[in-house]
Amino acid sequence: MLVSADYLREIAEKALLAQKVEPANARLQADVLIEAELRGLPSHGLQRLPRLVARLRAGLADPAADGRARRTGAGAFTIDGERGLGPVVMMRALDRLAAVTPEQGIALASIRNANHIGMLAYYVEAAARRGLIGIVMTTSEALVHPYGGTEAMLGTNPIAIGIPTGAEPFILDIATSRVSMGKIHHHALTGAPIPDDWAVDADGRRTTDPEAARTGAIAPFGDAKGYGLGLAVELLVASLAGSAFAPEVGGTLDATRQANKGDILILIDPAAGEGHPSGLAAYLDRLRASRPADPLRPVAVPGDGMRARRMRALAGGIDLPDPLHEEIRALSEG
Amino acid sequence: MLVSADYLREIAEKALLAQKVEPANARLQADVLIEAELRGLPSHGLQRLPRLVARLRAGLADPAADGRARRTGAGAFTIDGERGLGPVVMMRALDRLAAVTPEQGIALASIRNANHIGMLAYYVEAAARRGLIGIVMTTSEALVHPYGGTEAMLGTNPIAIGIPTGAEPFILDIATSRVSMGKIHHHALTGAPIPDDWAVDADGRRTTDPEAARTGAIAPFGDAKGYGLGLAVELLVASLAGSAFAPEVGGTLDATRQANKGDILILIDPAAGEGHPSGLAAYLDRLRASRPADPLRPVAVPGDGMRARRMRALAGGIDLPDPLHEEIRALSEG
Repeated sequence: MLVSADYLREIAEKALLAQKVEPANARLQADVLIEAELRGLPSHGLQRLPRLVARLRAGLADPAADGRARRTGAGAFTIDGERGLGPVVMMRALDRLAAVTPEQGIALASIRNANHIGMLAYYVEAAARRGLIGIVMTTSEALVHPYGGTEAMLGTNPIAIGIPTGAEPFILDIATSRVSMGKIHHHALTGAPIPDDWAVDADGRRTTDPEAARTGAIAPFGDAKGYGLGLAVELLVASLAGSAFAPEVGGTLDATRQANKGDILILIDPAAGEGHPSGLAAYLDRLRASRPADPLRPVAVPGDGMRARRMRALAGGIDLPDPLHEEIRALSEG
Repeated sequence: MLVSADYLREIAEKALLAQKVEPANARLQADVLIEAELRGLPSHGLQRLPRLVARLRAGLADPAADGRARRTGAGAFTIDGERGLGPVVMMRALDRLAAVTPEQGIALASIRNANHIGMLAYYVEAAARRGLIGIVMTTSEALVHPYGGTEAMLGTNPIAIGIPTGAEPFILDIATSRVSMGKIHHHALTGAPIPDDWAVDADGRRTTDPEAARTGAIAPFGDAKGYGLGLAVELLVASLAGSAFAPEVGGTLDATRQANKGDILILIDPAAGEGHPSGLAAYLDRLRASRPADPLRPVAVPGDGMRARRMRALAGGIDLPDPLHEEIRALSEG
């Protein structure tokens, strides 16, 4: 059923308020979930909310914590999330960095012990709205096998990069896995086979069976290069945040373990550089106007599709599965 | 013919000294070229030297310049390379950043107007030897088409990331193109066809003919994600260094134009984080010991292959084509 974003935002917020989440924190956490729905990313949307409520009930998520910061350099902070909600800890970190970036030029926050931060694009969009370049990386449960390997040893380790351009910001938000586990779950639900280069089964064999893939491991994107990049994220985050490595990570997909992954946020003030935002917008327009492979599909720039989907969903509503809608409505009643 | 690295280093250095390059600069520039040869990256090795000599002769490369820095933030510099040799400007920038990183935690240099910096791994290895995390990005001539596009609009835009681990550092150095133009040239030389997903011809059609690919465009690695990442490098570098976009870039593959691409260097002090380098080494060893897809090929970590090739070449010599050897020997005589 198509429902409006405003209505979903309201019931999501109420479900969090019913767990004694501070009003501002409930608003922010709900917004992150709704923005993922609007962009057509249901795996990072409201389906996360029931688990989050369970984590709040179990004391694995703190309704008030926003992270305790230690300044480890003029431009660097480490942040103990103290089990706070991921978006709350992240946006507080973004505020801290944004406050020092004009003076520093570049600043870094390394975050451990925060709950799932959701769609990374949210934070680099927030940075871009303040005129800042943002880079976010995060780690997760072991779901991805090394290139040339067959065991799940790495997280899906996404990277987001947001860059102000003078027009709409450039927003890249990519997992370093070939697909998300959510997509494999979706195939399992519908019974559709998966392409044979997406995943291996528990014995390490390539499989087209989504059920078998769920207990196996997902391939990295882009073969050796994508593997190298996902591994760089794994190491950067662990070495700075002091968080766990993928095989020991828990707490983003369950309601029983503490969230021990890590997150990194880097902000850069374009004023510390020599470039011109308007030049970026003009170059991106040249890209969009360049000769496409398929005459019916113009060349796109990362962020274009997301923005178009968001506009459509804002106008036409979000297509939420009825059982999830019912579940959230029930949670909103406490 | 197999020749020793020491001998090649000597004649490369002499060829630069003959062009009035400062002795320390000649040593560094020669070292960067030799280190690429040792790692099996001839496209970034001595074949670059004759063009570099031509650029010095033409005044497009300055034998003494090491870059004029402007501090734009407590942790940020922009650097006008003033036509200096790429490695000279980069290592000077690395020195500057390394001097402030212990206090800042993170620091950034955005560089324009420097010549080709060669193999990026060189700089993140140098950072790792000082116990620092290093990230390097650079732009180049338009050689790569957008995902869903067919025109060369982006550089090969490599990224290197080096991370101290307690054992050998993690060293990632990847172009965001599927292959290098050097590899396509090599196929053209030997007459071997290229796989049909490497490149398009000048009309934008997929081609297996390396000659046709040379006037066309290379595919990005990893489809849409790799394209997004290469584009992020293009935008980050241009917005910070104030350098040109790929379609206007020249001066790294020719001896007639000024080098107007850009380079970015970020250093991070792991002491500004909460991690433990020994944990990184242990995790990487678990990766290497994890179940491989092919029992005869253990899982590798980026940097492993490079180090092994380097050790072999140091012991056994570098296999330099005779005409190139002769050319450099002649240049070394001034």
